[in-house]
Amino acid sequence: MKRLEPGPFIVPMPIVLVGADIDGRPNFMTAAFVAISNYEPPMVACGLNPAHRTCDGIVANKAFSICVPSVDLVEVVDYCGIASGHKEDKSGLFRVFRGDLPGAPMIEECALCAECRLVGATPLGVDTLFVAEIACVHAKDECVVNDRVDWSKISPLLFTFPDPSYWRLGGYVGKAWHIGKTYHAKKGTDGAGATTR
Amino acid sequence: MKRLEPGPFIVPMPIVLVGADIDGRPNFMTAAFVAISNYEPPMVACGLNPAHRTCDGIVANKAFSICVPSVDLVEVVDYCGIASGHKEDKSGLFRVFRGDLPGAPMIEECALCAECRLVGATPLGVDTLFVAEIACVHAKDECVVNDRVDWSKISPLLFTFPDPSYWRLGGYVGKAWHIGKTYHAKKGTDGAGATTR
Repeated sequence: MKRLEPGPFIVPMPIVLVGADIDGRPNFMTAAFVAISNYEPPMVACGLNPAHRTCDGIVANKAFSICVPSVDLVEVVDYCGIASGHKEDKSGLFRVFRGDLPGAPMIEECALCAECRLVGATPLGVDTLFVAEIACVHAKDECVVNDRVDWSKISPLLFTFPDPSYWRLGGYVGKAWHIGKTYHAKKGTDGAGATTR
Repeated sequence: MKRLEPGPFIVPMPIVLVGADIDGRPNFMTAAFVAISNYEPPMVACGLNPAHRTCDGIVANKAFSICVPSVDLVEVVDYCGIASGHKEDKSGLFRVFRGDLPGAPMIEECALCAECRLVGATPLGVDTLFVAEIACVHAKDECVVNDRVDWSKISPLLFTFPDPSYWRLGGYVGKAWHIGKTYHAKKGTDGAGATTR
Protein backbone atom coordinates (compact mmCIF):
# COMPACT_ATOMS: atom_id res chain seq x y z
CA MET A 1 0.00 0.00 0.00
CA LYS A 2 1.10 3.53 -0.69
CA ARG A 3 0.66 6.13 2.03
CA LEU A 4 -0.95 9.39 0.87
CA GLU A 5 -1.69 12.76 2.40
CA PRO A 6 -5.21 12.90 3.85
CA GLY A 7 -7.74 14.42 1.49
CA PRO A 8 -11.44 14.46 0.62
CA PHE A 9 -11.12 11.78 -2.06
CA ILE A 10 -11.82 8.44 -0.38
CA VAL A 11 -15.22 7.63 -1.93
CA PRO A 12 -17.12 8.26 -5.17
CA MET A 13 -19.82 10.83 -4.50
CA PRO A 14 -23.24 11.54 -5.97
CA ILE A 15 -23.66 14.78 -7.90
CA VAL A 16 -26.76 16.76 -6.98
CA LEU A 17 -28.16 20.21 -7.46
CA VAL A 18 -29.16 21.82 -4.18
CA GLY A 19 -31.95 24.34 -4.55
CA ALA A 20 -33.20 27.14 -2.33
CA ASP A 21 -35.17 30.33 -2.93
CA ILE A 22 -33.41 33.59 -2.20
CA ASP A 23 -35.46 36.76 -2.20
CA GLY A 24 -38.25 34.81 -3.84
CA ARG A 25 -36.12 33.46 -6.72
CA PRO A 26 -34.79 29.92 -7.08
CA ASN A 27 -31.05 29.39 -6.87
CA PHE A 28 -29.14 26.17 -7.42
CA MET A 29 -25.64 24.99 -6.57
CA THR A 30 -23.84 21.80 -7.51
CA ALA A 31 -22.82 19.60 -4.60
CA ALA A 32 -21.15 16.24 -4.06
CA PHE A 33 -20.56 16.05 -0.30
CA VAL A 34 -23.99 14.49 0.13
CA ALA A 35 -25.23 11.25 1.67
CA ILE A 36 -28.21 9.62 3.21
CA SER A 37 -27.50 9.87 6.93
CA ASN A 38 -30.48 8.17 8.55
CA TYR A 39 -32.78 5.36 7.47
CA GLU A 40 -35.90 6.22 9.46
CA PRO A 41 -36.95 8.98 9.34
CA PRO A 42 -35.09 9.35 6.03
CA MET A 43 -32.49 12.09 6.35
CA VAL A 44 -29.61 13.54 4.37
CA ALA A 45 -26.39 15.24 5.38
CA CYS A 46 -24.74 17.76 3.04
CA GLY A 47 -21.36 19.39 3.55
CA LEU A 48 -21.66 22.81 1.91
CA ASN A 49 -19.46 25.86 2.10
CA PRO A 50 -21.72 28.37 3.86
CA ALA A 51 -20.32 31.16 1.67
CA HIS A 52 -22.45 29.82 -1.19
CA ARG A 53 -25.50 31.95 -1.94
CA THR A 54 -27.72 28.86 -1.80
CA CYS A 55 -26.82 28.39 1.87
CA ASP A 56 -28.30 31.79 2.72
CA GLY A 57 -31.59 30.44 1.37
CA ILE A 58 -31.29 27.13 3.22
CA VAL A 59 -30.81 28.91 6.54
CA ALA A 60 -33.54 31.47 5.90
CA ASN A 61 -36.15 28.98 4.62
CA LYS A 62 -35.13 26.04 6.81
CA ALA A 63 -35.71 24.02 3.66
CA PHE A 64 -33.99 23.07 0.42
CA SER A 65 -34.21 20.62 -2.43
CA ILE A 66 -31.86 17.92 -3.60
CA CYS A 67 -32.23 17.26 -7.32
CA VAL A 68 -30.49 14.38 -9.10
CA PRO A 69 -29.48 15.30 -12.64
CA SER A 70 -28.85 12.73 -15.34
CA VAL A 71 -25.67 12.58 -17.40
CA ASP A 72 -27.20 14.58 -20.27
CA LEU A 73 -27.34 17.63 -17.98
CA VAL A 74 -23.62 17.53 -17.15
CA GLU A 75 -22.78 20.86 -18.77
CA VAL A 76 -25.41 22.91 -16.96
CA VAL A 77 -24.68 21.00 -13.75
CA ASP A 78 -21.02 21.92 -13.97
CA TYR A 79 -22.00 25.49 -14.85
CA CYS A 80 -24.05 25.65 -11.62
CA GLY A 81 -20.87 24.71 -9.77
CA ILE A 82 -18.78 27.36 -11.51
CA ALA A 83 -21.22 30.29 -11.51
CA SER A 84 -21.82 31.90 -8.13
CA GLY A 85 -25.34 32.87 -7.12
CA HIS A 86 -23.80 35.98 -5.59
CA LYS A 87 -22.97 37.20 -9.09
CA GLU A 88 -25.27 35.40 -11.51
CA ASP A 89 -29.00 34.78 -11.64
CA LYS A 90 -29.45 31.01 -12.06
CA SER A 91 -33.24 31.15 -11.70
CA GLY A 92 -33.86 30.72 -15.43
CA LEU A 93 -31.64 27.72 -16.06
CA PHE A 94 -34.29 25.10 -15.36
CA ARG A 95 -38.04 24.55 -15.38
CA VAL A 96 -38.86 24.84 -11.69
CA PHE A 97 -41.67 23.08 -9.86
CA ARG A 98 -42.71 23.12 -6.24
CA GLY A 99 -43.94 20.73 -3.59
CA ASP A 100 -45.03 21.21 0.00
CA LEU A 101 -42.03 23.04 1.48
CA PRO A 102 -41.85 26.78 0.78
CA GLY A 103 -38.40 27.86 -0.37
CA ALA A 104 -37.37 24.49 -1.86
CA PRO A 105 -37.52 24.83 -5.67
CA MET A 106 -37.15 21.64 -7.69
CA ILE A 107 -36.05 20.94 -11.25
CA GLU A 108 -38.31 19.28 -13.82
CA GLU A 109 -35.33 18.23 -15.95
CA CYS A 110 -33.91 16.16 -13.05
CA ALA A 111 -34.79 12.49 -12.72
CA LEU A 112 -35.36 12.67 -8.99
CA CYS A 113 -35.98 15.55 -6.58
CA ALA A 114 -36.42 15.57 -2.82
CA GLU A 115 -37.86 18.25 -0.58
CA CYS A 116 -35.72 18.52 2.54
CA ARG A 117 -36.61 20.09 5.88
CA LEU A 118 -33.55 21.49 7.67
CA VAL A 119 -32.91 19.86 11.05
CA GLY A 120 -29.50 21.28 11.92
CA ALA A 121 -26.38 22.99 10.62
CA THR A 122 -22.98 22.29 12.18
CA PRO A 123 -19.84 24.14 11.08
CA LEU A 124 -17.04 21.58 10.54
CA GLY A 125 -14.23 23.59 8.94
CA VAL A 126 -14.43 25.10 5.48
CA ASP A 127 -17.85 23.49 5.16
CA THR A 128 -20.98 23.32 7.28
CA LEU A 129 -22.86 20.06 7.64
CA PHE A 130 -26.54 20.63 6.86
CA VAL A 131 -28.70 17.77 8.12
CA ALA A 132 -32.27 17.53 6.88
CA GLU A 133 -35.27 15.27 6.83
CA ILE A 134 -36.52 14.11 3.43
CA ALA A 135 -40.11 15.31 3.41
CA CYS A 136 -41.20 14.16 -0.03
CA VAL A 137 -39.66 12.70 -3.20
CA HIS A 138 -40.64 13.42 -6.79
CA ALA A 139 -39.44 11.35 -9.73
CA LYS A 140 -39.88 11.44 -13.47
CA ASP A 141 -42.68 9.08 -14.47
CA GLU A 142 -40.37 7.01 -16.67
CA CYS A 143 -37.97 6.38 -13.73
CA VAL A 144 -40.67 4.83 -11.54
CA VAL A 145 -41.85 1.21 -11.70
CA ASN A 146 -44.59 0.05 -9.32
CA ASP A 147 -44.23 3.26 -7.29
CA ARG A 148 -40.53 2.60 -6.72
CA VAL A 149 -37.58 4.43 -8.21
CA ASP A 150 -35.78 2.20 -10.72
CA TRP A 151 -32.11 3.22 -10.86
CA SER A 152 -31.57 1.32 -14.10
CA LYS A 153 -33.72 4.03 -15.71
CA ILE A 154 -31.83 6.95 -14.17
CA SER A 155 -28.38 7.88 -15.39
CA PRO A 156 -26.95 9.76 -12.39
CA LEU A 157 -23.59 11.50 -12.25
CA LEU A 158 -20.88 10.49 -9.80
CA PHE A 159 -17.92 12.63 -8.77
CA THR A 160 -14.40 11.85 -7.62
CA PHE A 161 -11.45 13.75 -6.22
CA PRO A 162 -8.51 14.46 -6.22
CA ASP A 163 -8.79 15.10 -9.97
CA PRO A 164 -12.31 16.53 -10.05
CA SER A 165 -14.14 14.19 -12.43
CA TYR A 166 -17.66 13.19 -13.41
CA TRP A 167 -18.53 9.55 -14.06
CA ARG A 168 -21.57 7.52 -15.06
CA LEU A 169 -23.18 4.87 -12.89
CA GLY A 170 -22.07 1.55 -14.39
CA GLY A 171 -23.69 -1.84 -14.66
CA TYR A 172 -25.68 -3.76 -12.08
CA VAL A 173 -23.54 -6.06 -9.93
CA GLY A 174 -26.03 -7.81 -7.68
CA LYS A 175 -28.64 -7.76 -4.98
CA ALA A 176 -27.55 -6.55 -1.56
CA TRP A 177 -28.16 -8.62 1.59
CA HIS A 178 -28.31 -11.56 -0.76
CA ILE A 179 -25.19 -12.01 -2.91
CA GLY A 180 -23.11 -12.58 0.23
CA LYS A 181 -25.18 -15.54 1.36
CA THR A 182 -23.25 -17.62 -1.16
CA TYR A 183 -19.99 -16.39 0.35
CA HIS A 184 -21.19 -17.45 3.76
CA ALA A 185 -21.90 -20.95 2.51
CA LYS A 186 -18.51 -21.17 0.76
CA LYS A 187 -16.78 -19.98 3.89
CA GLY A 188 -18.56 -22.61 5.95
CA THR A 189 -17.69 -25.34 3.49
CA ASP A 190 -14.04 -24.79 2.72
CA GLY A 191 -13.04 -22.93 5.85
CA ALA A 192 -11.28 -20.26 3.80
CA GLY A 193 -11.81 -16.54 4.18
CA ALA A 194 -11.36 -13.80 1.61
CA THR A 195 -7.61 -13.93 2.09
CA THR A 196 -7.34 -17.06 0.01
CA ARG A 197 -9.82 -16.18 -2.70
CA MET B 1 -43.32 13.99 -12.07
CA LYS B 2 -44.61 11.26 -9.80
CA ARG B 3 -44.89 11.94 -6.10
CA LEU B 4 -43.41 9.22 -3.85
CA GLU B 5 -43.26 8.54 -0.16
CA PRO B 6 -40.06 9.93 1.42
CA GLY B 7 -37.30 7.36 1.72
CA PRO B 8 -33.52 6.97 1.93
CA PHE B 9 -33.12 6.38 -1.81
CA ILE B 10 -32.43 9.75 -3.40
CA VAL B 11 -28.75 9.31 -4.33
CA PRO B 12 -26.38 6.50 -5.33
CA MET B 13 -24.08 5.76 -2.39
CA PRO B 14 -20.53 4.49 -2.05
CA ILE B 15 -20.06 1.06 -0.50
CA VAL B 16 -17.36 0.91 2.18
CA LEU B 17 -16.23 -1.39 4.93
CA VAL B 18 -15.99 0.39 8.26
CA GLY B 19 -13.40 -1.14 10.57
CA ALA B 20 -12.83 -0.90 14.30
CA ASP B 21 -11.08 -3.07 16.86
CA ILE B 22 -13.23 -4.59 19.58
CA ASP B 23 -11.52 -6.29 22.49
CA GLY B 24 -8.31 -6.19 20.46
CA ARG B 25 -9.76 -7.90 17.39
CA PRO B 26 -10.67 -6.22 14.11
CA ASN B 27 -14.33 -6.07 13.15
CA PHE B 28 -15.81 -4.78 9.90
CA MET B 29 -19.28 -3.72 8.82
CA THR B 30 -20.59 -2.77 5.39
CA ALA B 31 -21.91 0.78 5.12
CA ALA B 32 -23.35 3.04 2.43
CA PHE B 33 -24.58 6.12 4.30
CA VAL B 34 -21.15 7.71 3.93
CA ALA B 35 -19.93 10.97 2.43
CA ILE B 36 -17.13 13.44 2.53
CA SER B 37 -18.50 16.22 4.72
CA ASN B 38 -15.71 18.78 4.83
CA TYR B 39 -13.03 19.80 2.36
CA GLU B 40 -10.41 21.16 4.74
CA PRO B 41 -9.59 19.52 7.06
CA PRO B 42 -10.86 16.48 5.13
CA MET B 43 -13.71 14.88 7.04
CA VAL B 44 -16.32 12.18 6.57
CA ALA B 45 -19.82 11.68 7.93
CA CYS B 46 -21.25 8.16 8.32
CA GLY B 47 -24.77 7.31 9.33
CA LEU B 48 -24.52 4.00 11.18
CA ASN B 49 -26.98 2.14 13.34
CA PRO B 50 -25.31 2.27 16.80
CA ALA B 51 -26.54 -1.25 17.53
CA HIS B 52 -23.81 -2.55 15.20
CA ARG B 53 -20.89 -4.13 17.01
CA THR B 54 -18.45 -2.00 15.02
CA CYS B 55 -19.96 1.14 16.56
CA ASP B 56 -18.96 -0.05 20.04
CA GLY B 57 -15.39 -0.02 18.77
CA ILE B 58 -15.70 3.38 17.12
CA VAL B 59 -16.92 4.95 20.35
CA ALA B 60 -14.36 3.17 22.53
CA ASN B 61 -11.35 3.85 20.27
CA LYS B 62 -12.48 7.24 18.96
CA ALA B 63 -11.15 5.97 15.66
CA PHE B 64 -12.20 3.78 12.74
CA SER B 65 -11.24 2.97 9.19
CA ILE B 66 -13.09 3.40 5.94
CA CYS B 67 -12.00 0.85 3.36
CA VAL B 68 -13.13 0.96 -0.27
CA PRO B 69 -13.57 -2.53 -1.74
CA SER B 70 -13.47 -3.21 -5.45
CA VAL B 71 -16.19 -5.08 -7.32
CA ASP B 72 -14.36 -8.41 -7.08
CA LEU B 73 -14.92 -8.37 -3.30
CA VAL B 74 -18.69 -7.98 -3.57
CA GLU B 75 -19.53 -11.33 -1.97
CA VAL B 76 -17.46 -10.85 1.18
CA VAL B 77 -18.59 -7.22 1.34
CA ASP B 78 -22.22 -8.29 1.30
CA TYR B 79 -21.42 -10.98 3.84
CA CYS B 80 -20.02 -8.31 6.18
CA GLY B 81 -23.37 -6.56 5.90
CA ILE B 82 -25.34 -9.72 6.66
CA ALA B 83 -23.22 -11.22 9.46
CA SER B 84 -23.38 -9.40 12.79
CA GLY B 85 -20.19 -8.86 14.76
CA HIS B 86 -22.26 -9.59 17.85
CA LYS B 87 -22.56 -13.20 16.70
CA GLU B 88 -19.70 -13.87 14.28
CA ASP B 89 -15.98 -13.25 14.36
CA LYS B 90 -15.11 -11.34 11.19
CA SER B 91 -11.48 -10.78 12.20
CA GLY B 92 -10.16 -13.46 9.81
CA LEU B 93 -11.98 -12.38 6.67
CA PHE B 94 -9.25 -10.06 5.42
CA ARG B 95 -5.52 -9.40 5.65
CA VAL B 96 -5.41 -6.54 8.13
CA PHE B 97 -2.83 -3.76 8.24
CA ARG B 98 -2.45 -0.80 10.54
CA GLY B 99 -1.49 2.85 10.35
CA ASP B 100 -1.13 5.57 12.97
CA LEU B 101 -4.48 5.38 14.75
CA PRO B 102 -4.88 2.60 17.33
CA GLY B 103 -8.14 0.71 16.94
CA ALA B 104 -8.59 1.41 13.20
CA PRO B 105 -7.80 -1.83 11.32
CA MET B 106 -7.50 -1.59 7.53
CA ILE B 107 -7.89 -4.12 4.74
CA GLU B 108 -5.07 -5.00 2.34
CA GLU B 109 -7.51 -6.36 -0.23
CA CYS B 110 -9.23 -2.94 -0.49
CA ALA B 111 -8.09 -0.43 -3.08
CA LEU B 112 -8.21 2.50 -0.71
CA CYS B 113 -8.30 2.80 3.08
CA ALA B 114 -8.55 5.84 5.32
CA GLU B 115 -7.77 6.18 9.00
CA CYS B 116 -10.45 8.33 10.61
CA ARG B 117 -10.31 10.16 13.93
CA LEU B 118 -13.77 10.48 15.53
CA VAL B 119 -14.85 14.08 16.04
CA GLY B 120 -18.48 13.64 17.07
CA ALA B 121 -21.46 11.31 17.14
CA THR B 122 -25.00 12.66 16.86
CA PRO B 123 -28.06 10.41 17.15
CA LEU B 124 -30.48 11.23 14.30
CA GLY B 125 -33.12 8.51 14.49
CA VAL B 126 -32.45 4.84 13.78
CA ASP B 127 -28.89 5.85 12.91
CA THR B 128 -26.19 7.95 14.54
CA LEU B 129 -24.10 10.34 12.47
CA PHE B 130 -20.42 9.71 13.13
CA VAL B 131 -18.26 12.60 11.95
CA ALA B 132 -14.53 12.07 11.68
CA GLU B 133 -11.38 13.65 10.36
CA ILE B 134 -9.43 11.71 7.73
CA ALA B 135 -6.00 11.32 9.32
CA CYS B 136 -4.23 9.34 6.62
CA VAL B 137 -5.04 7.54 3.37
CA HIS B 138 -3.49 4.31 2.07
CA ALA B 139 -3.97 3.08 -1.48
CA LYS B 140 -2.89 0.06 -3.47
CA ASP B 141 0.25 0.91 -5.42
CA GLU B 142 -1.40 0.16 -8.75
CA CYS B 143 -4.23 2.65 -8.01
CA VAL B 144 -1.86 5.58 -7.51
CA VAL B 145 -0.34 7.69 -10.28
CA ASN B 146 2.03 10.54 -9.38
CA ASP B 147 1.03 10.24 -5.73
CA ARG B 148 -2.64 10.75 -6.58
CA VAL B 149 -5.43 8.20 -6.48
CA ASP B 150 -6.55 7.34 -10.02
CA TRP B 151 -10.20 6.30 -9.94
CA SER B 152 -9.97 4.78 -13.40
CA LYS B 153 -7.83 2.09 -11.77
CA ILE B 154 -10.23 1.41 -8.88
CA SER B 155 -13.49 -0.43 -9.46
CA PRO B 156 -15.59 0.71 -6.49
CA LEU B 157 -19.07 -0.48 -5.62
CA LEU B 158 -22.06 1.82 -5.51
CA PHE B 159 -25.34 1.12 -3.73
CA THR B 160 -28.92 2.17 -4.32
CA PHE B 161 -32.24 1.92 -2.55
CA PRO B 162 -35.18 1.21 -2.47
CA ASP B 163 -34.30 -2.15 -4.06
CA PRO B 164 -30.96 -2.75 -2.32
CA SER B 165 -28.53 -3.09 -5.24
CA TYR B 166 -24.81 -2.96 -5.98
CA TRP B 167 -23.51 -1.24 -9.11
CA ARG B 168 -20.18 -0.57 -10.78
CA LEU B 169 -18.75 2.87 -11.37
CA GLY B 170 -19.26 3.53 -15.08
CA GLY B 171 -17.34 5.48 -17.69
CA TYR B 172 -15.66 8.85 -17.38
CA VAL B 173 -17.92 11.73 -18.38
CA GLY B 174 -15.74 14.80 -18.05
CA LYS B 175 -13.66 17.18 -16.00
CA ALA B 176 -15.43 19.10 -13.28
CA TRP B 177 -15.22 22.90 -13.03
CA HIS B 178 -14.39 22.76 -16.72
CA ILE B 179 -17.01 21.04 -18.85
CA GLY B 180 -19.55 23.70 -17.88
CA LYS B 181 -17.47 26.55 -19.22
CA THR B 182 -18.72 25.56 -22.66
CA TYR B 183 -22.30 25.74 -21.41
CA HIS B 184 -21.62 29.21 -20.10
CA ALA B 185 -20.35 30.32 -23.49
CA LYS B 186 -23.34 28.73 -25.30
CA LYS B 187 -25.70 30.41 -22.90
CA GLY B 188 -24.03 33.73 -23.49
CA THR B 189 -24.16 33.29 -27.25
CA ASP B 190 -27.67 32.04 -27.92
CA GLY B 191 -29.40 33.38 -24.86
CA ALA B 192 -30.99 30.00 -24.18
CA GLY B 193 -30.96 28.21 -20.87
CA ALA B 194 -31.15 24.52 -20.18
CA THR B 195 -34.91 24.60 -20.67
CA THR B 196 -34.48 24.68 -24.45
CA ARG B 197 -31.65 22.15 -24.78
